[in-house]
Amino acid sequence: MNGPSAGTEEDRRARAALTRVFEPGDERGGRWLREIGPVELLRRLAGGDGSARTLKGMTEPRLAGYRLRAATADPVRDLADVAAVGGRFVCPGDAEWPSQLDDLGDARPIGLWVRGGADLRLWALRSVAVVGARACTPYGAHMAATLGAGLAERGWVVVSGAAFGVDGAAHRGALAAGGATMAVLACGVDVAYPRGHAELIGRIAEQGIVLGELPPADHPTRSRFILRNRVIAALTRGTVVVEAEYRSGSLVTARNAQRLGRFTMGVPGPATSGLSSGVHELLRGEGVLVTDAAEIAELVGEIGDLAPEKRGPVLPRDLLDDLSAQVLDALPPKGSRNGRDIARTAGTSTDEALGRLYELHSLGFVEREGDGWRLTQVPLRAEDVRRGGT
Amino acid sequence: MNGPSAGTEEDRRARAALTRVFEPGDERGGRWLREIGPVELLRRLAGGDGSARTLKGMTEPRLAGYRLRAATADPVRDLADVAAVGGRFVCPGDAEWPSQLDDLGDARPIGLWVRGGADLRLWALRSVAVVGARACTPYGAHMAATLGAGLAERGWVVVSGAAFGVDGAAHRGALAAGGATMAVLACGVDVAYPRGHAELIGRIAEQGIVLGELPPADHPTRSRFILRNRVIAALTRGTVVVEAEYRSGSLVTARNAQRLGRFTMGVPGPATSGLSSGVHELLRGEGVLVTDAAEIAELVGEIGDLAPEKRGPVLPRDLLDDLSAQVLDALPPKGSRNGRDIARTAGTSTDEALGRLYELHSLGFVEREGDGWRLTQVPLRAEDVRRGGT
Repeated sequence: MNGPSAGTEEDRRARAALTRVFEPGDERGGRWLREIGPVELLRRLAGGDGSARTLKGMTEPRLAGYRLRAATADPVRDLADVAAVGGRFVCPGDAEWPSQLDDLGDARPIGLWVRGGADLRLWALRSVAVVGARACTPYGAHMAATLGAGLAERGWVVVSGAAFGVDGAAHRGALAAGGATMAVLACGVDVAYPRGHAELIGRIAEQGIVLGELPPADHPTRSRFILRNRVIAALTRGTVVVEAEYRSGSLVTARNAQRLGRFTMGVPGPATSGLSSGVHELLRGEGVLVTDAAEIAELVGEIGDLAPEKRGPVLPRDLLDDLSAQVLDALPPKGSRNGRDIARTAGTSTDEALGRLYELHSLGFVEREGDGWRLTQVPLRAEDVRRGGT
Repeated sequence: MNGPSAGTEEDRRARAALTRVFEPGDERGGRWLREIGPVELLRRLAGGDGSARTLKGMTEPRLAGYRLRAATADPVRDLADVAAVGGRFVCPGDAEWPSQLDDLGDARPIGLWVRGGADLRLWALRSVAVVGARACTPYGAHMAATLGAGLAERGWVVVSGAAFGVDGAAHRGALAAGGATMAVLACGVDVAYPRGHAELIGRIAEQGIVLGELPPADHPTRSRFILRNRVIAALTRGTVVVEAEYRSGSLVTARNAQRLGRFTMGVPGPATSGLSSGVHELLRGEGVLVTDAAEIAELVGEIGDLAPEKRGPVLPRDLLDDLSAQVLDALPPKGSRNGRDIARTAGTSTDEALGRLYELHSLGFVEREGDGWRLTQVPLRAEDVRRGGT
């Protein structure tokens, strides 16, 4: 465990306030947080008793900055603001906390501001990042959309940064395939940035998940974009770079992923294209060349057993909550059914049903088949066959 | 050593005859050759005394085929025919034999029919294969020509198969840069195949080297193309595949190269292009992604010390033959000079001078600089500096 769990409402409020005090990825702040917990840390930073000066690595100019931010932080209002757009604040220790973020050590997010009906932790377990250049070529956009759709069809959650170019194409590809997608923003989850993607971000918040470290209404900065990339890298099982020039932000995500032991993949392009040169550099190093969603799924599907596949559920069916159980009951015993029909039978909205289906997928109950969903086929184990006495 | 050396004229004639008896890469024939030598092997195959039946693995139908070919083989005429086009027959044990071919074991060529003024062994020491699809895209042709030119400019000899598409573009790129190129044919070196490349093959024979295992006038077959690829792979330090579909001949060359411990490289292309799919498959395995000649040269330049670079000559200058010494003397003490001017000073043709320059390059006497040639700059060794007393 990385620091005390965010058990109490007071802890949660303190963490919410601290997301306004510290910039994303501030490792010094992360260390203090781990050492003395959020409530005490906020108290020292906001108070005038001088106890903040005893924090290791604290300097006067730093303290002045922190104190100013801490004094103006209003976590109660921020929590109300995120609730007003149907969102929530997820903290380490929460059931929904994606524990793979703990791999970031003291640079782990203090908490995550989240919009969308699905369970962040379960979706993240089966997620792949597809990132790349804003000013991509038509080829890059085509590849991002095709990979987004293909990954979604295979039951993978497509994670990206909602930017123009590759990011947007990847999200749209997943949505077009009736699949799951998550946007990690470098600003508040109620801020539509870039503005031209306001509608797209709105659709992702409705049908998928929009999340970020920054509190409501906060705006992106250059460094926040770069630090956002570490969250994309840590959250997912692997990162696919579609088009990227040398020294681009997408390569930062890829290098982060590599450092964190995640899969790093790249889509090749013409050697004559500057927008592929960063990807090629990656592929000349540790990156794995991928050309379609099947190759990506094969690679990231290898890792561990976070999300058991084709082995049947990891949870007993009666531990599911009511709505998930209804959605599961809406699947036919044989063959597949599309999300809309499942939603109708389960008596819920299509978006809600899809969210539950992706969760049930993570838990091993269901799998995708073309456009639809079916119950997981559990292969007979040799043991069972012997016991049955073939 | 792989079998007895081809010392005598009788051995040479017998090997020449055997290139008509055995198909390229016949390992059974190669083993017999190693065990009993070319003269005795030819005697047994051509004679009627039944001694050929004692060869391990011989069967009656096989023997009938070998006998028919051995009876009609006329090595004296073949040797005269190759001489008539300015060529020669190079055997294992000859000073010009490229000993890296011995890595092919019993599938080693029995001998090589060679046209061109340069020394095959020396050129092969600094050679890289650039191969790919016949029906390549304009992108593939562009990349092959660019890599051919760039490798030639760096003093590398560009080896390919003289086919349409990538092969031809690679040869032409090298020639256009005033560089060295070798064509390995799947037919007699006096046969222009494909016919549309008659002029190109003629230019390569004049300015570079044309070689193959098949005796004069012999024609290519499907299997000869495939077996030719092992010679390209073994002869060179590495193979670059430019465009290739799944299961293409270029991939055979690449896999051969891999098995022989040579570098295997591929030029990426759009993931949407079928003509890049074979290359991408290669790059998902052991192949190294390369996008320009500098990357190729960096990789193949790493290997061993066959052709010492930037360390000064490996041979004392007075062991050079007269013409090579004249060419070397035609270089200025400082700076570089182009091949034409060097040829004029040395009193020889430009093609001849270039052949010698590439040899001198292999021996470490000279290096390329842009369009021209200069004497190798030997860096001072720490030792010398100390001795000189800085």
